[in-house]
Amino acid sequence: MHTGINLAPPVFELGLKAYLYGQKALALARAADRISEKYQIKIIFTPQYVDIPKIARETENLLVFAQHLDPVKAARGNGSVLAEAVKEAGAAGVLLNHVEKRLTLSKISRTIKRADEVGLLSMVCADSPQEAAAVAHLGPNLILAEPPELIGTGKSVGKGKNQFVTRSMAMIKSINPKILVLNSAGIRSGDDVAEIIRSGAEATGSTSGVLKAPDPAAKLEEMIKSLKEAWLETHPC
Amino acid sequence: MHTGINLAPPVFELGLKAYLYGQKALALARAADRISEKYQIKIIFTPQYVDIPKIARETENLLVFAQHLDPVKAARGNGSVLAEAVKEAGAAGVLLNHVEKRLTLSKISRTIKRADEVGLLSMVCADSPQEAAAVAHLGPNLILAEPPELIGTGKSVGKGKNQFVTRSMAMIKSINPKILVLNSAGIRSGDDVAEIIRSGAEATGSTSGVLKAPDPAAKLEEMIKSLKEAWLETHPC
Amino acid sequence: MHTGINLAPPVFELGLKAYLYGQKALALARAADRISEKYQIKIIFTPQYVDIPKIARETENLLVFAQHLDPVKAARGNGSVLAEAVKEAGAAGVLLNHVEKRLTLSKISRTIKRADEVGLLSMVCADSPQEAAAVAHLGPNLILAEPPELIGTGKSVGKGKNQFVTRSMAMIKSINPKILVLNSAGIRSGDDVAEIIRSGAEATGSTSGVLKAPDPAAKLEEMIKSLKEAWLETHPC
Amino acid sequence: MHTGINLAPPVFELGLKAYLYGQKALALARAADRISEKYQIKIIFTPQYVDIPKIARETENLLVFAQHLDPVKAARGNGSVLAEAVKEAGAAGVLLNHVEKRLTLSKISRTIKRADEVGLLSMVCADSPQEAAAVAHLGPNLILAEPPELIGTGKSVGKGKNQFVTRSMAMIKSINPKILVLNSAGIRSGDDVAEIIRSGAEATGSTSGVLKAPDPAAKLEEMIKSLKEAWLETHPC
Repeated sequence: MHTGINLAPPVFELGLKAYLYGQKALALARAADRISEKYQIKIIFTPQYVDIPKIARETENLLVFAQHLDPVKAARGNGSVLAEAVKEAGAAGVLLNHVEKRLTLSKISRTIKRADEVGLLSMVCADSPQEAAAVAHLGPNLILAEPPELIGTGKSVGKGKNQFVTRSMAMIKSINPKILVLNSAGIRSGDDVAEIIRSGAEATGSTSGVLKAPDPAAKLEEMIKSLKEAWLETHPC
Repeated sequence: MHTGINLAPPVFELGLKAYLYGQKALALARAADRISEKYQIKIIFTPQYVDIPKIARETENLLVFAQHLDPVKAARGNGSVLAEAVKEAGAAGVLLNHVEKRLTLSKISRTIKRADEVGLLSMVCADSPQEAAAVAHLGPNLILAEPPELIGTGKSVGKGKNQFVTRSMAMIKSINPKILVLNSAGIRSGDDVAEIIRSGAEATGSTSGVLKAPDPAAKLEEMIKSLKEAWLETHPC
Repeated sequence: MHTGINLAPPVFELGLKAYLYGQKALALARAADRISEKYQIKIIFTPQYVDIPKIARETENLLVFAQHLDPVKAARGNGSVLAEAVKEAGAAGVLLNHVEKRLTLSKISRTIKRADEVGLLSMVCADSPQEAAAVAHLGPNLILAEPPELIGTGKSVGKGKNQFVTRSMAMIKSINPKILVLNSAGIRSGDDVAEIIRSGAEATGSTSGVLKAPDPAAKLEEMIKSLKEAWLETHPC
Repeated sequence: MHTGINLAPPVFELGLKAYLYGQKALALARAADRISEKYQIKIIFTPQYVDIPKIARETENLLVFAQHLDPVKAARGNGSVLAEAVKEAGAAGVLLNHVEKRLTLSKISRTIKRADEVGLLSMVCADSPQEAAAVAHLGPNLILAEPPELIGTGKSVGKGKNQFVTRSMAMIKSINPKILVLNSAGIRSGDDVAEIIRSGAEATGSTSGVLKAPDPAAKLEEMIKSLKEAWLETHPC
């Protein structure tokens, strides 16, 4: 667990996957940067590898994450994503074990260590409360707990009597209370964000909900505004 | 086979793998850029993904290649390397199926097509003359034929009575004469370069031979100078 | 290419995948064995690994194939399928690179060599005429050329003006005329079998077409009878 | 966690990997069967897939395990190892996530569930006490905790001041006391077995220590005899 960056909740992750890249990714990053500053909400922004340097350089508030990292050390390893290279490119962290880029248990463990070594935050996906508990023993900064069957469906994990958020939160915190828990999957509106925060999540995020909206920057602001309000409502100081 | 870039031989590939990144990779890229111009030899330069944009922007003569590409289309695909993103970042091509990043036959085929679609050169590794012939049917721009047991050993493939170069060249050209054939593995000096060019190769390259030298830029110049001389000697107009 | 078994066409492959196993697989194998003898048509029968020994022992005419093979040599390699073990268990050959078990180009090459070393036939899947040509250089006994988008759909590759069979056949034979070409995908009736044989295939096969039929043995006999008739019709001596 | 087989410690695992197969594997299985009965020690015997049926049928005391299992359900899945097929072949359990057959976290989770569904014991490898704790949340019957750098080296994990056994045991038991903990790696003699049992292990095992011995059956008996004595010494009723 990299401790060099203050990661107090709430946090929102906007994962670009392979949807957006280049100038369009940069434009959205700039909008996200302004929104992050306006609402004082930390935004994790996860672009294609090649877009990390420019986005990191031209934004001030975003936590730019690589979409993946390999556990290799500097040496051989053609085609791999090297921790030191990602760090020097300006990234703040890495996303690991996404449903579209699964890692072996051993690689999750070794890649978190590599991220720690070079000073990168690590966020690891988990499919179930049990997997989230498993990952908690490996010491990442964040765990993104979401049922893979809901990803990209537009159905929010927070809806109905789903105990997913509560259970994964409880299991992770009992193992390591410093790990931040992000619940998302199916977030497509400010209301979805508010609902998941009210059900106990410390962080949430979206990909298609933002990127497929007619105006992605406006949709992102809708979500961040709602996140801010729901957080203040549920965490009054 | 992308036809938008003139790739007349000879060509030299300097693959950085995970050895060099960031400012040090950029410094070597600038040196390679000057050497390429001085000797009028094309150099394929293959850095970490995150270093592609800056190196492409700050050099004029290099053919910057990504170390790998995924066959995904713009959409879902977290952690994958998207063709359009690599292209917009300024890359001229991609390396595929390196011994450290093996691809299925189906992915080699589909990724070459993706490279063609967006206008990227494709260079595919093959372990044997038979595999080189196999790859030739899939239409890449270059085939890097090298016996994996020699990679990184400092033993040149051109040494002794090794028929590897001659056989792989003959098989590839009989299938598609437009494909450029690169033979390397174990290149560590200008003499190694000269020897492999004299045995018939159109292109060669190095990683550890250059990067582990006390002065990588000087070692690269030694190789490129030798490549130029051996090429003129064996290809007098 | 293993030459110890006479593989003159026509041939039919019945691939069980993970549909059928144990006693039910054995019962179907016995029926296939009788049908093979009755029509004098060679049937490749591809069960789960654990079912190979019993089916090989209790049938006389089937060519029992493993669904996959790893290129490991006898030693370490927990979880891998060892060539010598498959051979001693009574298998006649192996299926490689199926769309549900993709292999790297390098592994296809090395696994065909392992099959040759221990005396096993090798059958390799290819998605397109180009991939079929590629595989032909690696010297398998059979190439199963089928467009993956048709597998399991019930749409026959032979339908309409599809030139898939003709083109893959021509490309493979021009490289190595000893390789047997199998075209299938979407075969669900005796008529489909006849159609694909009439379009030039030397071999065909089915999985869901047989296994999802109300009476799989009867459906298999329908196909084999049709194969025999179409073959005699198109190959009169 | 499959509860249909009583798995009270101590247990010994003999993993054949790809070293031994066919008649030789059966001969060693018969010897192991006699040794298991003589010393009343449970032996997990892990042969090649194709050898499972015969060994399961011709032995009485062994717990025959598959070297791997895929999480597929009966249907498509060519080349995969189907739970129902392994169960009907007579296996008692499966080994998962061996260093030579790594699985994603998600597959470990889903494959344990598949094993439970059909009534197979599950034993999962873990590289460190942290990974062992992670796996414990997924509910396998056994966790094989061993540092991969010691596997096949002949250096015992129990030697010196290594706290590996104690720590992995403590972490696993605090999460789920029903999980049996197996520590091995580098076991090559009866003395190694005794030492690891005295350091707290409930189970241990060997591959190369037995299979590379001049007389594998004699070496196995040496280990089992030593296991029995060390167990009685440390667990006097």
